[in-house]
Amino acid sequence: MAESDLGYFFNPDSIAVIGASANETKIGNSVVKNIKNSGYKGKLYPINPSASEILGYKCYKSVLDVKEDIDIGVIVIPAKYVVNVVKECAQKKIKGLIVITAGFKEVGGDGVERELELAKICSENNIRVLGPNCLGFMGLNYNATFAADQPKKGNIAIISQSGAMLTGMLDYSMGRTFGFSCCISLGNKADLTLVDFLKYLADDDNTKVILAYLENVIDGDRFLEVVSEITREKPVVILKSGISEQGAKAASSHTGALAGSDRAYDLSFEKTGVIRAKTIEDLFDFGEIFAFQPLPKKNSFVIISNAGGPGIVAADAFSREGLKFAKFPEDILHKLRKNLPAEASIFNPVDIVGDATPERYRFALNTIFRLDSNFDKNTISKSTKEDMPNQETPNGCCLILAPQALTRPTDVASLVLETSKKIPDIPMVCSFIGGKNIAEGQKLLNDNHIPCYYFPSRAAQTLKVLVKYCENKKRQSLKSINIKKFNVNKNRVNEIFEEVREDNRSVLLSYENNEIFQIYGIPSPKSKIVRSPIQAFDISNDIGFPLVAKVVSPQILHKTDVGGVLLNILDQKQAREAYTQIMIKVKKFGPRNAKIYGIEIQEMIDFKAQPKVSELILGMSKDPTFGPMIMVGTGGIYANFIKDVAFSLTYKFTREDAVNLLSQTKIFALLQGVRGEPPSDIDAVIDVLLKLSQLVNDFPEIVELDINPLLSFVKECSAVDIKITIKS
Amino acid sequence: MAESDLGYFFNPDSIAVIGASANETKIGNSVVKNIKNSGYKGKLYPINPSASEILGYKCYKSVLDVKEDIDIGVIVIPAKYVVNVVKECAQKKIKGLIVITAGFKEVGGDGVERELELAKICSENNIRVLGPNCLGFMGLNYNATFAADQPKKGNIAIISQSGAMLTGMLDYSMGRTFGFSCCISLGNKADLTLVDFLKYLADDDNTKVILAYLENVIDGDRFLEVVSEITREKPVVILKSGISEQGAKAASSHTGALAGSDRAYDLSFEKTGVIRAKTIEDLFDFGEIFAFQPLPKKNSFVIISNAGGPGIVAADAFSREGLKFAKFPEDILHKLRKNLPAEASIFNPVDIVGDATPERYRFALNTIFRLDSNFDKNTISKSTKEDMPNQETPNGCCLILAPQALTRPTDVASLVLETSKKIPDIPMVCSFIGGKNIAEGQKLLNDNHIPCYYFPSRAAQTLKVLVKYCENKKRQSLKSINIKKFNVNKNRVNEIFEEVREDNRSVLLSYENNEIFQIYGIPSPKSKIVRSPIQAFDISNDIGFPLVAKVVSPQILHKTDVGGVLLNILDQKQAREAYTQIMIKVKKFGPRNAKIYGIEIQEMIDFKAQPKVSELILGMSKDPTFGPMIMVGTGGIYANFIKDVAFSLTYKFTREDAVNLLSQTKIFALLQGVRGEPPSDIDAVIDVLLKLSQLVNDFPEIVELDINPLLSFVKECSAVDIKITIKS
Repeated sequence: MAESDLGYFFNPDSIAVIGASANETKIGNSVVKNIKNSGYKGKLYPINPSASEILGYKCYKSVLDVKEDIDIGVIVIPAKYVVNVVKECAQKKIKGLIVITAGFKEVGGDGVERELELAKICSENNIRVLGPNCLGFMGLNYNATFAADQPKKGNIAIISQSGAMLTGMLDYSMGRTFGFSCCISLGNKADLTLVDFLKYLADDDNTKVILAYLENVIDGDRFLEVVSEITREKPVVILKSGISEQGAKAASSHTGALAGSDRAYDLSFEKTGVIRAKTIEDLFDFGEIFAFQPLPKKNSFVIISNAGGPGIVAADAFSREGLKFAKFPEDILHKLRKNLPAEASIFNPVDIVGDATPERYRFALNTIFRLDSNFDKNTISKSTKEDMPNQETPNGCCLILAPQALTRPTDVASLVLETSKKIPDIPMVCSFIGGKNIAEGQKLLNDNHIPCYYFPSRAAQTLKVLVKYCENKKRQSLKSINIKKFNVNKNRVNEIFEEVREDNRSVLLSYENNEIFQIYGIPSPKSKIVRSPIQAFDISNDIGFPLVAKVVSPQILHKTDVGGVLLNILDQKQAREAYTQIMIKVKKFGPRNAKIYGIEIQEMIDFKAQPKVSELILGMSKDPTFGPMIMVGTGGIYANFIKDVAFSLTYKFTREDAVNLLSQTKIFALLQGVRGEPPSDIDAVIDVLLKLSQLVNDFPEIVELDINPLLSFVKECSAVDIKITIKS
Repeated sequence: MAESDLGYFFNPDSIAVIGASANETKIGNSVVKNIKNSGYKGKLYPINPSASEILGYKCYKSVLDVKEDIDIGVIVIPAKYVVNVVKECAQKKIKGLIVITAGFKEVGGDGVERELELAKICSENNIRVLGPNCLGFMGLNYNATFAADQPKKGNIAIISQSGAMLTGMLDYSMGRTFGFSCCISLGNKADLTLVDFLKYLADDDNTKVILAYLENVIDGDRFLEVVSEITREKPVVILKSGISEQGAKAASSHTGALAGSDRAYDLSFEKTGVIRAKTIEDLFDFGEIFAFQPLPKKNSFVIISNAGGPGIVAADAFSREGLKFAKFPEDILHKLRKNLPAEASIFNPVDIVGDATPERYRFALNTIFRLDSNFDKNTISKSTKEDMPNQETPNGCCLILAPQALTRPTDVASLVLETSKKIPDIPMVCSFIGGKNIAEGQKLLNDNHIPCYYFPSRAAQTLKVLVKYCENKKRQSLKSINIKKFNVNKNRVNEIFEEVREDNRSVLLSYENNEIFQIYGIPSPKSKIVRSPIQAFDISNDIGFPLVAKVVSPQILHKTDVGGVLLNILDQKQAREAYTQIMIKVKKFGPRNAKIYGIEIQEMIDFKAQPKVSELILGMSKDPTFGPMIMVGTGGIYANFIKDVAFSLTYKFTREDAVNLLSQTKIFALLQGVRGEPPSDIDAVIDVLLKLSQLVNDFPEIVELDINPLLSFVKECSAVDIKITIKS
């Protein structure tokens, strides 16, 4: 699929509605009506072989009958006719199609074929397709959906994989004060995906924040690269469902899409700076605050409340979300103490107590944000910064109100509006706890784009998302990252895999693992396979002594049990004897038709001589959407019980990522050295992570990889037990 | 404080309002007006020295001027006059007081004294007091608060420590469809606490569920015993704030109360079966579902949706909350498959697809709940139960609707109402996703007490709480538990503590710890202190060989460094020599004025000879409200980094509790034996937990206790390193 500017979807000069209808009960009628009623200024061509005019527009039998160019075709005819019509659209050189018609991949059987054919024709003819099986497209200039209502216009873009979800969400939004720059229903994503539209919206001045409802991502690598760029420009909030086993079952039966594992989605959102919404409510609340409030310069907030209880509830919620409380400079504290009642709490959270009038709220806001003319703003805050580095003017405000006798909520709301205009760079939210008595004030605030919630917990959740996005914005773009590759002999690895496949195996043998690790420079005990007593004699010198000899055979799993292992071999002679001895034992006690490849002679690590040894586990598993995921954590025989592990995608996996990954584990503290111990060679472990990441990316045929344990020493480390599985 | 029936607070025959006022701006006026307007049928006596009549009621100068008995006095005069008036109330033999007046403990200084005096007079005269510093009391029969509005009556009791919070919450409730059996503002809790009112409400037929907002509990032990009884009768939902450091700071500056640690609250709520609400929204949503919906017989639900996306979102939310999906029997599946469109998903979550009419919803509900006359209800479900034990009729229903062309939300709502009447034992909730188009249907449901939420996540959260409460109900009442005490020589322990105190220490020495553990039967290496070479010779035989000798001195922390430890002593002679040798070394290398108590000779455990050794950590820390908390988890030198520990209150700590506690740790899996290892002696560890619990409860002067490690073997265990700290 060619990358192209999707501008014609957002601002088409002309639209054909294929399957337009004069019958009011038909979708083909709703679409024409919606385009008309949305005030579309371009040319509209209803296509219907048996009508001459629909809703005042001249009707055509086919797109080929239209003389002028057509930018967009909206298709609402039954599924079985779609492919033929698309061929006509190709002939007509239509740029983009919106296929509302259902009955494709989502119904299975014939539908799957039909969708593939649709995609093929469009791709060959350079037509971009939205859908099929979708609600349509709604931009600022036209509404080509069959939705019953026209939602408000605004600066939020919304993209949904599910049409029903979009209908519900748009209906819900009618009661809120935000609006949309576009509403896009992705449907089956035969061609255009979320990523395509995100690319366009990144540069769209009409869009301040992008919300999406997704059930899966089909273009994982593209998602990672492209979305990571976009989130540096504007926030992207995604509600990804199909998390649970039951949810995923419902997801795959419903869209025919294979849902990736949820962990991989979490990792990919984190890597690309996407904000993940857990509920629909989150999605909209996050969208709203991004749409209307500025980003805070710092995680440093103030809570102002007219009652203790609500103040505590708010402080709890702020702490839960990791929001920080600004510490006021002394001059501010003095002024608050001097002018507020004795029972007031002047520390953050500020409690201006139950009989607070709007005037007292004003005093608190003016004082805390230095809006009072009595303060010389610049001098004081400068001196403050230098003398008291931990003290500051807050970078965001949450104002709490519980309706009491003297409260006058509506006046407080007006005051907040007035104040927020004076400090446009400070995000401001409110929680008016109540119903009837605070309704007017709450509405006044929301109408003027200061989010006012019933309860403080919501305020904390949305402010937290602003803070998180500020951190996300600072991430490096993935596109700009060039991973330095270790220089390795990939040909030899290919040969090894070839040998394994020829041997009808998918799991590598120990000496094969060791050779691959040697090629990639991952330290592991030196190891060679020998096939005769003389070879054992000769090659043992290359390994060094003491060494271990082990039989090599895919059929012998418990080598020790059949006498297939000899430890502590001290010289060449012993090595030669070991060969013979093991062969005799194995033939006697091993499985009758075991295929014996030879004897592996392996360096013996004397790790009891080490001042400190930690056992790590490293591994790789594969996500169908986002590729290899690397894992590191506490290893050893109890690794599965201790479950101290962290994961990362290996896509553009940097040294910084590796350090960050390792530092998410509990064993990281131990590696750094605790209780007077020397630190372990953390750099060596990081190197292994990076080399492992390159290995699994170089060879997509590796489907699983485990190292347990990787022994970590004060100097260096060693991958003692390795398991590599390749696609068979 | 005497326990008494608080019936007169709920149904007083007569009320005096002390500080009643004819001035409409005064609280003393609001209270009289509220009592009058709430339709109070009893006698009302306004008390005011300078008025003859208030709001139509004859006014008295003092309660002593009233001839008839008075049940309840409501006090709204300034704080400084309160004590005198309370003395008059005592003389008048008033049963209960509602002290609305502020200016007591919460303002510090004089206020604290004033509150103590108030409490003392009342206690001496058997008067129960609500407040001071509260909003008042509102029951079904009267409203003695100064709240601006009268909330709806209903079956929810609400109790709040914060007056402002209660005002806000009541105002908010006006927009909801539930009502209250009573609204109680606790204020400073000079006498009556949450527990007192809970005791009354447990037997109150007008109350189905109890909601509370708390900042602290002051009567921890009573709370544990009493609340655990009540939650077996009806649900108690508590929003406890002051969780965060910042919140706790705000809480203590505001009520003057010392907030207990949050972990202890979590443990106490769990132990007593209290449902904890995290937000005000939770508090009300949980109250609502308990008030209106039945409890499910089993964790087994069905989701019915008219769209895939919302169905997946709901399934995710259900999984997140641990709700289970009913598996339909085959006859149900057949019937669904036969009658629903091909694209429908007949498995749970059921998707009856976008063009679903109310009739299709009806078909789905009737089929799944066997409400259709075509089914022979009894036969089929019986045979189903026997043949397919995992398949069942669901025990609860969540119906999801996204507004689409044919949906008719209001008709679906009517249908749900109709159906729910036929299955009154099945909890039913809905999520209509939308706004304008679903508003009428949503209102119809809520008005008829079927909770209908905007988003499925809420539905999952409230159903989950029903399931959790069903589990909680099954708990044994704490009152009925008799902890079997181990028979121990407490006198000797007292003597040891006495010696430690006399020695001006708070930390016990090793041999003291060992003696206490021996008294309590907690296995630890045998140990004695000896004070001469001859004693060393004699007593070493009692310990057995090999043994270890260590200097005993509070001043010598690093014994090995000064030559104060000798290992592997094999006979009596060596023991005698060790004594002399250590004394010489210690005098030479130890701190100059170290006080030397003697030499400890201690059994040497040869744990390398054990087939399996695990290191545990056990400990105790103290919560100011709920008493000792016991801890167990992975021990060893890395315990603080691994952080695999679990906590429990020691109040009524049973063997079952101990097993449950240990099983919350990751090391529990290892103790059970993994990878072919033998299991450890888990019973021995459980015994230690129980004995430790008794020890810390027998001796409240123990403020901290640590065992790290407790070595756990295949047979028995041993507390190797013990630290006990007592109050100094």
